[in-house]
Amino acid sequence: MRVFIAGVDGYLGWPLAQHLSARGHVIAGADALLRRNWVAERGSVSAIPIAPVDERLTAYRELSGSSLPFHALNLRDHSALGRALADFAPDAVVQLAECPSAPYSMIDFRHADFVQRNNVSGTLSLLFAMREHCPDAHLVKLGTMGEYGTPDVDIPEGFFEVEFRGRRDRLPFPRQAGSWYHWSKVFDSHNVAFACRLWGLGATDVMQGIVYGSWCPPADPRLNSRLDFDEAFGTAVNRFCCQAVIGHPITPYGSGTQSRALLSLADSMQCLTLALEHPPTPGEYRVFNQLRDVLSIKQLAELVRDAADSLGITAHIATVDNPRSEAEAHHYSPDSENLRALGFKPSAPIDEELRRMIGDLLPHADRVKAHADRLPPTVRWHPGPAPAAGEVPDSSTQVTSDPWQEGDR
Amino acid sequence: MRVFIAGVDGYLGWPLAQHLSARGHVIAGADALLRRNWVAERGSVSAIPIAPVDERLTAYRELSGSSLPFHALNLRDHSALGRALADFAPDAVVQLAECPSAPYSMIDFRHADFVQRNNVSGTLSLLFAMREHCPDAHLVKLGTMGEYGTPDVDIPEGFFEVEFRGRRDRLPFPRQAGSWYHWSKVFDSHNVAFACRLWGLGATDVMQGIVYGSWCPPADPRLNSRLDFDEAFGTAVNRFCCQAVIGHPITPYGSGTQSRALLSLADSMQCLTLALEHPPTPGEYRVFNQLRDVLSIKQLAELVRDAADSLGITAHIATVDNPRSEAEAHHYSPDSENLRALGFKPSAPIDEELRRMIGDLLPHADRVKAHADRLPPTVRWHPGPAPAAGEVPDSSTQVTSDPWQEGDR
Repeated sequence: MRVFIAGVDGYLGWPLAQHLSARGHVIAGADALLRRNWVAERGSVSAIPIAPVDERLTAYRELSGSSLPFHALNLRDHSALGRALADFAPDAVVQLAECPSAPYSMIDFRHADFVQRNNVSGTLSLLFAMREHCPDAHLVKLGTMGEYGTPDVDIPEGFFEVEFRGRRDRLPFPRQAGSWYHWSKVFDSHNVAFACRLWGLGATDVMQGIVYGSWCPPADPRLNSRLDFDEAFGTAVNRFCCQAVIGHPITPYGSGTQSRALLSLADSMQCLTLALEHPPTPGEYRVFNQLRDVLSIKQLAELVRDAADSLGITAHIATVDNPRSEAEAHHYSPDSENLRALGFKPSAPIDEELRRMIGDLLPHADRVKAHADRLPPTVRWHPGPAPAAGEVPDSSTQVTSDPWQEGDR
Repeated sequence: MRVFIAGVDGYLGWPLAQHLSARGHVIAGADALLRRNWVAERGSVSAIPIAPVDERLTAYRELSGSSLPFHALNLRDHSALGRALADFAPDAVVQLAECPSAPYSMIDFRHADFVQRNNVSGTLSLLFAMREHCPDAHLVKLGTMGEYGTPDVDIPEGFFEVEFRGRRDRLPFPRQAGSWYHWSKVFDSHNVAFACRLWGLGATDVMQGIVYGSWCPPADPRLNSRLDFDEAFGTAVNRFCCQAVIGHPITPYGSGTQSRALLSLADSMQCLTLALEHPPTPGEYRVFNQLRDVLSIKQLAELVRDAADSLGITAHIATVDNPRSEAEAHHYSPDSENLRALGFKPSAPIDEELRRMIGDLLPHADRVKAHADRLPPTVRWHPGPAPAAGEVPDSSTQVTSDPWQEGDR
C-alpha cells in the first residue's frame, strides 16, 4: 500500500513511517517542521535527541532500502500539496500534521487563533487536494479523545442512537472539548465527516487517547522519535517519566482524579496500521476510539513512580494546582470496540512500557535537567482578568511559524 | 444600553442600528464592507440601491440626532478591535460580521477556506477582545438554523436531555450542517459556548431561520438596507420576489419539499432586541431558535406567486435541479419557545411582508433585470470529479477581500 503521511517528522509520524515500511508499505510524507519550532519557542527541547530531517531520511533509506519522498511543506500550501499527492498517488493519507497542544493554544489570542487556523485550514486543504488528486484514497485523520470531554454518559465511537420525544435517530455524539486546541480537532472531525458525505471520501477518524512512550530503535539513533516534556508539548505520562529521571517530584494536576484514556506509542502504531490495512468503503466516515487503558492521572503518577523505583530511582509525587478548567471527579466510560474487532491486541503492559521509556530517557537526563524550568505549568485556563503583559511567562512570545506569512495565496 | 454592532453595514446590521436607536439605545459599529465586495465579485448588485457607508452615517446622524461611531475594520484586526471596544465600553456586542453564504463557501477550496477562516477567526478575535476590554458585556452572536441540519428528531434550542445506556445528561444538540459555511457557524457556536464556560462571558447564540424582507424607511433612502438576489447572497424568499418582479419563473430547488424555518426582517429586529434587552447571567450560554414559520420551499414559492398576483404581477413556478446535497423529504420540528417566553409577538403575516417587499422592489426591477444571469444556480454541492478550470462559472475568481492579506499580524 502507498501511504502518504502528513506530519511525518512528528512524534507519531516518524515511527509510523518506519512501522509501515517494515510491513512492506511504501511511504511518502510531508512536514513543515513546525513542531521543532514550537518546542524551541517554548524554550525547550526533545528529551531524546532527534536527527535533522535530512539525516532521518538518509537513515531511513539505508535501513529500509527504499527512499521516502519528502515534501517540506505546510498543508495550507494547497497547490504544492496537490502536486505532492498527484506525484505519489497514495492509497491512503494519514493526517498527523496538526499542532497538538492544548496549553499552547491557551497562551493568548495569537496562539489560540494560530492553532485553530493551522489545524482547520490545513485539514480542509488536504480534503480538497485529496478530492482532486486521489479521491479514492483512504484518509486516516488523527483526532483526540479530548474532543468528547467528560459527559455524564458513556462515550460511544462517534455516533449514538438516541430517543428524543418519542422519535429515534443515530446522531453524532456531542463534543464538549476543553481547550481551543481540542475544539480545533472537533472542527476537523466535522469537516472530514462532511467531505465523506459530500464527495464519497472514505475516512477513519481516530479519537486517540494520550500516547506515551519512547521510540529508540537500537539499529540507529537517527531513527529515534522525539519525546517532549515541556508543559505545552509534553503529555502527562512522558512528562512524569522525565520528572522521575531528574529527581523532580511527579506532579499530577489538581486532585489527579481526572480519568483519561491512554495507549502506548507501540499500540498507537498497531492501531493506525489496522485502520490503514482495513479501509472503509467509499463515502464511509467511521470513528475509532483508540485507547487501551482508562486510568486516573494519579494512578499514572503512581505507575511512573513504581516503574522508576523498580529501576532504582526514588521518585515522589507532589500535587500542584490544576492550571486547567476540567472536571476532576466525573463519569468516564469510552467504548473502544471498533479496533478490537479489527484485531487490536495490546502489546506490552503499561508498567513495562514505562520502564522501557525511563531506560531510554536516563542517558539524556542532563537535557531534561537543563530545561527543567519548562516542566511546571504556567499557562492557566482559569477565569479571571486578562493577564497583564509579562504576567504569564512567554505570553508575549510571537507565534514563530505562522504559515500565513508564507504560503501560496 | 450601549450596543456595539459588528457588521453594522450589512443586511441585518444596518436596520438593527436604526431599530435600536429608535428605542433609545446608543450604537457604535464596525464593518470591513466585505459584503459589498463579495456581491460585486459574484457580478451582482443589491436590488435595492444602498448608500455608501459615509452617507448612511450622515443620514443616521441627521435622523437620530446622535452620531454612530464607526470603525472600518475586520474583526481579525485584533488590536484595532480592542481599541474600538475599549473606547465605546459597550453593554452588549452583536456579532453580525460573518460571511453568510453557503453557495459562496462551496465554490472551491479558496472560498471554503476563506469563509471558515473569516468567520471563525473573526469571532475568536471578538471573544478575546471582549474578555480584555468589556468582559461583562453581553454577546449576541448570530448563528443559523442550518447548523442543526435535518435530524429525524425534534430540534431543541441548543441542548437536549437524553438517556443513553441508563444514564442521563443534558448535552449539546448535535450539529449536522450542510455546507462549509454552515460548519463555520457551528464552529463559532462551539467557541462562544467555550468562552462562556471558560471566562464567565454571558452570550446569546441565535439560531436564526431564513430572513426575508426589505427595509426601506420612507424618511430617507440612505437608510435602506441591501437586498441581494444573486445565487450566493440572495436568500430563497428574497430571490423569489426578485424573480417575480422581472417576470422570471420562481425557481425552488429540486422538489421544493425541503422545510425551512423563516422570519421577516422586522421580526428578526424584534427578536434581537428582545435578546439584548433581556441579557443572560454571567457565564450563561443560551441558545434561541429565532423563527416564526416553518414552511416548505415550494409553499414559499406559492406564497410569493400569490403575493405578486395580488399586485397584478403574473408569476410562474418552475422547478430546477437542486444544486445542493440536502434531504428533500424529512422531519422538521424545531422548538422556538425561548423568544416567545421573552415576549416575541410576530408582526405582519408573511403574505403582507411579501407584498411590501415586492412593492419596494418594483421601482428597481431594471437593476435586477440587468443582473438576471446571477439568479440561476451554478455552484453545485454534488459529488463528482473536481470541476475543470472554467467549468463552474466564476470558480477561478480569486477571493477579493481576504483579510489575511492585510490586518495587524
